[in-house]
Amino acid sequence: MSELLAGIDLGGTSIKAAIADVAGNVLIRESIPTESHAGPDTVIQRIAELVLRLQHQAENGGSSRLAGVGLGVPGLVDVKTGTTRFLPNLPTQWRDVPVADSLRAALGCPVRVLNDVRMATLGELRFGFGRERPKVTLAFFAIGTGIGGGVVIDGRLRLGEFGAAGELGHQIIVDNGPRCGCGNHGCLEALASGPAIAAEGVRLMNMGLAPRLREMVDGRADRVSPREMREAAEAGDEAVAESLERAARLIGIAAANIVTVLHPELIVLGGGVSRLGDVLLQPVRDVIKSRVKMLPTENVEVKCSQLGDQAGLMGAIALAQRSPSE
Amino acid sequence: MSELLAGIDLGGTSIKAAIADVAGNVLIRESIPTESHAGPDTVIQRIAELVLRLQHQAENGGSSRLAGVGLGVPGLVDVKTGTTRFLPNLPTQWRDVPVADSLRAALGCPVRVLNDVRMATLGELRFGFGRERPKVTLAFFAIGTGIGGGVVIDGRLRLGEFGAAGELGHQIIVDNGPRCGCGNHGCLEALASGPAIAAEGVRLMNMGLAPRLREMVDGRADRVSPREMREAAEAGDEAVAESLERAARLIGIAAANIVTVLHPELIVLGGGVSRLGDVLLQPVRDVIKSRVKMLPTENVEVKCSQLGDQAGLMGAIALAQRSPSE
Repeated sequence: MSELLAGIDLGGTSIKAAIADVAGNVLIRESIPTESHAGPDTVIQRIAELVLRLQHQAENGGSSRLAGVGLGVPGLVDVKTGTTRFLPNLPTQWRDVPVADSLRAALGCPVRVLNDVRMATLGELRFGFGRERPKVTLAFFAIGTGIGGGVVIDGRLRLGEFGAAGELGHQIIVDNGPRCGCGNHGCLEALASGPAIAAEGVRLMNMGLAPRLREMVDGRADRVSPREMREAAEAGDEAVAESLERAARLIGIAAANIVTVLHPELIVLGGGVSRLGDVLLQPVRDVIKSRVKMLPTENVEVKCSQLGDQAGLMGAIALAQRSPSE
Repeated sequence: MSELLAGIDLGGTSIKAAIADVAGNVLIRESIPTESHAGPDTVIQRIAELVLRLQHQAENGGSSRLAGVGLGVPGLVDVKTGTTRFLPNLPTQWRDVPVADSLRAALGCPVRVLNDVRMATLGELRFGFGRERPKVTLAFFAIGTGIGGGVVIDGRLRLGEFGAAGELGHQIIVDNGPRCGCGNHGCLEALASGPAIAAEGVRLMNMGLAPRLREMVDGRADRVSPREMREAAEAGDEAVAESLERAARLIGIAAANIVTVLHPELIVLGGGVSRLGDVLLQPVRDVIKSRVKMLPTENVEVKCSQLGDQAGLMGAIALAQRSPSE
C-alpha cells in the first residue's frame, strides 16, 4: 500500500489540490470552484471530497493511505490548533473554524494548516530557491489583490506564535498613507497591491494623462490592470510608467527595510503583479542598492518566484510532508 | 590556575572593559578614555594594556589564563575575520583594521568582535531578558547619538553574513525624509535619535514655541537634550511635548513594522534616550496596538533595557564565553 500526501490551496474563488508521493512528486492536481458563499462546512466537505477523489485517481488501481495533508488558507490561522482566526476574503470570514479537526475526521490523517502566502514561501524553500540553498534567508512578497508575505531565516520559515509573522504587505511605508484593508493606513498593500496600482491607472486615465491606456481598455475602468498599464507605459504613456515605477519603488523601500533588518540573501517577488517582471524587479533592486548604506548589498538578489502560481500548492505538499513533531 | 574572560566595549570617547569568571560573573571593571585621535594601533594597544592590568588585579595574587575576549565596536565589522569595515564615529574610521588578530597576538587567546549594539543585544539575551526566556524573539533599539539595533530570533542573535543584520535605526520611515549620517535619507535615526530630537527642540525654542525650555537651558542650543525637553514638556511646553511624542511615534512605526514582520514577544528600548521612560515607551506601545492589525499584539511587550548602560559590556562577556566553533 503506497503512502500519499495531499496539498490544498484554499482561495476565495478556487480550491486547488494535488496528490503527491512522500518525496513530494506531484501525481495529479485539480482545481474546483470554492463556492465560498455556501459557508465553511460545505467548503470543507468539498475539499475532503476532492482530496479523496484525487487520491483514488492517483492510486491507479492499487491501494493507498494518506500520510499527511497540508492546507493553506487566505488569512490568519492558529497554526497550533489548525483553527482559522480570520479569512477576510471569504464571505463568512471563517472566524474560529476548526478546519484541521474537520478535515482530519474526514480524511483520517494529520492535517496542517498555514496562511497561504507563508505556505507559498515554504514551497519556495523546499521545492524552489531553497532546494540548492537549504539554509537560505529570504523574504517572499506575494503581490496580487493584497500583498502577503513570508520570511525564511537560515532555512526556517518564521511563523511566530500564531503563524502570523511575515506579513510583509502590512509594513507601514507612508505614515499618513491611504487606508488599508486591514484597518491600518499607509501599509505597503494599500500603496502597491494590484488594485492600488490599477486605481492610480484609472485616475490617470480619467484625468486625461493616459491616452494609450484609455485606448487599450476602451475607457473602461474595470479593465485597467497592472498588465495593461505596463503595455500602455511601453506604448508611450509616461504618467503610467511613472506610476508603475512609484509602486515598484515603494515595494523597494519595504524590501530595503527587510534587508537592513535581516540581511537576507534573497528577496522573492511572487503573485500576479510579479508578472510585470523587470518593470517591478529593477526599481526594487535600485532602491536596495541606492538606499541601504549600512550593510553590503552586492550579494542580495531580487528575483521572481521560481514556482510561480504553483508555489502555494507545492508549499502545501511540503507542509504535508512534515512529521507532526516538527 | 583560574580561567578568566575579558569583555571590551570600544566607544568613540571611552573604552570600557571588564574581567569575569567563565560563568560570566564580573570580577572587576574599568573605563578609560579612548584617545581615538591616536589611531587604531595605539587604541588597540591601550585596550590590551587595560585588559592585562585588569586581569592582573582580578587574579588577586593567584594566577590566571584568559580563555576568551569579546570586543564590541561602534560600526561595521566582518564577524568572520574580526576585521573592522567602517567605524563612522572614530576619527580614522578604522577601515579594514584586523583588530581581532592584533588583540589575539597581544593577549594570546581567541578574540571575537561584534558591532556594539548587536553585542548589547547579546548581553540582554544572555544576562537580561533572555535569562528566563532563552528562546525569546526580540528586537533591541539602542537610541542615543545614533539608533543601533539587534534582532534575536528564537534565542539566536541574527547576524547575517557580516554581522550587519539588525540595523533597526536605518529602516526608511519617511521616504523623502531628512538626510541620515549613513548617506541614506528618511532613516529612523535621522528622525528620532538624540540629536534629531534635540534639533527639533532647538528649532521650537528659536521660534519662540518653547519658553520653558528656553528658560531651562538659558537659551543655549548646545544644552538642549531629550532630557531637558521632557522636563520642559512637563513644565508646560506643549510644542515640546508634541515633538517628543512625534519622535516616539516614529520609533513606534519602526517597532510596529518589526512586529508585523517577525512577531517578536519583546521590543527592548535602550541607549541614553530610553531614559525618557514612559514618554517614549507609551507612544511606542500605542502605535503597535493601534496600527498592527494583522496579528495579535496583546503579548508583545515594550520595555526598557534590563541591563541599561552595562548591556554592551555584558554582551562582550557573553561573546567571550562562546566556544570558537559556535
